[in-house]
Amino acid sequence: MKVKVVTNILEANDRLAAENRKIFQDLGVYVINLMSGPGAGKTSILEQTIKGVNGRIKLGVIEGDIAGDDDARRIGNLGTPVVQINTGGACHLDANMIRVVMDDLPLKDIDILFIENVGNLVCPAEFNVGEDIKVMLLSIAEGHDKPLKYPLMFQESTALILNKIDLLPYTDADLEKMRKDSLSLNPKLKIFDVSCRTGEGIGDWVNWLLTIVKK
Amino acid sequence: MKVKVVTNILEANDRLAAENRKIFQDLGVYVINLMSGPGAGKTSILEQTIKGVNGRIKLGVIEGDIAGDDDARRIGNLGTPVVQINTGGACHLDANMIRVVMDDLPLKDIDILFIENVGNLVCPAEFNVGEDIKVMLLSIAEGHDKPLKYPLMFQESTALILNKIDLLPYTDADLEKMRKDSLSLNPKLKIFDVSCRTGEGIGDWVNWLLTIVKK
Repeated sequence: MKVKVVTNILEANDRLAAENRKIFQDLGVYVINLMSGPGAGKTSILEQTIKGVNGRIKLGVIEGDIAGDDDARRIGNLGTPVVQINTGGACHLDANMIRVVMDDLPLKDIDILFIENVGNLVCPAEFNVGEDIKVMLLSIAEGHDKPLKYPLMFQESTALILNKIDLLPYTDADLEKMRKDSLSLNPKLKIFDVSCRTGEGIGDWVNWLLTIVKK
Repeated sequence: MKVKVVTNILEANDRLAAENRKIFQDLGVYVINLMSGPGAGKTSILEQTIKGVNGRIKLGVIEGDIAGDDDARRIGNLGTPVVQINTGGACHLDANMIRVVMDDLPLKDIDILFIENVGNLVCPAEFNVGEDIKVMLLSIAEGHDKPLKYPLMFQESTALILNKIDLLPYTDADLEKMRKDSLSLNPKLKIFDVSCRTGEGIGDWVNWLLTIVKK
C-alpha cells in the first residue's frame, strides 16, 4: 500500500517535471539540479561559479531550503536573479514547487538556471524537477564511505564536485577511494576537485559549464 | 490527499514505536536514536563511546544504512553486539524496521541500545522508532547555518554532539553561532564539543551517558 502511494506520487511528479523541461527548453534555459548532503557547499559553489563565469553567460538560481532565506540573500548579493523556496519540512524539491516559482525569474534572460535542492543525500535524487542534468557535491570532510552508502545520487548525477579539498591534510578521507567508488557506480561521472574556500579547481568546473551551454 | 496519507503513515509508525518502547523498557534497555547528516561521524562517536565506556555498562547497536554493512563491521570489530538494517532506499529508519531486527540482539544483556539512523538531517527526526531520547551530531565542517535551516532535528534532540572540532582552525565555521542558534531552537539542548579523530571531549559525553543510564 505504501509503495503504491509513493509510486503514484513519483509518476505525477515526473509528468510535471516533463512539462517544466519543455518550458525551460522553449525559452533556451539549461537547467542544473544541484544536490548534496547538508553543508557540502552548494551555495558556496554557486557563489564561486557566479564569480568565475563573470558575466560570460547569464545565470539564475532557485534556492530550496526547509526554512530561511540565507542562501537566496547570498546569491542576490552577487546581482544574480534568485528566488527562494521554503519547503516547510519537505526533504527535497519537487516539480510542482519549481512550477510555482519559475515565473518569478527572468527566464528569457537566463542561460543556465541552477536549482539548489534541499541538503539531503537521499531523497532529492528520486525527484526530477525538470532539469537537463543533475550535479552533486560531496564534501571530502564527509568521508570516503559515502558513495557506496548513498549510491542513487552518484548514479543519477552527470558531474560530482568534490569540495573542501583544502581540508584533505586534516582528515582521514581517502580521495582516491571516493573517486574509485563513485566511478564504479557511474563510470561516466565527471569529477571535479575543488575548494570553494581557496578557489582551487573552480576554473576547471566553470570551463566545463561554459562548454555544456554551448552544445 | 498527500498530507492525509503521510499523517496515517506517521500515526501507524507512532503506534509501533510505542510498542517497541514498552518492549525495551520491560527489558531494562535504554534506547538512543542517533541522527545526523551524512558523514557527521555517527559510527565514529559509537566507536569512541564503546572505548570510553570500556565495559562499565553494556552497549548494543542497530545500524541503519541505505546500502552496505561497513558500519556494522566497524562496531562488530569492537566486540559490541550489532545488527545492520539496509533500508534499500528509504531515507530514515521507522519503528517497524526496528521491530523486525530487535530480536537479533541480546536485549537482556544491553544497558544502552544505540540506533544509528540513516545519514539525513531531515526525515529521521519525523519518525519515532521506540527510543527514550534522540541525540544528534553535527560536523562543524557542515557550517554554522545548519540549525536554522534544519530546525526540527535540533528541536527533537535531547543532546547535540558538535563533532570534528579539530577542523575548526581550517574552516570559517562560527561555533558560537552554532551553539546560540541551536539553543534558540531548543533551550534545554545539552551540547558536547568533541573530536572523534583526536578523542577531545569524548570523556564528557561518556560521563553524561553513564549518568543517564543510572537514572
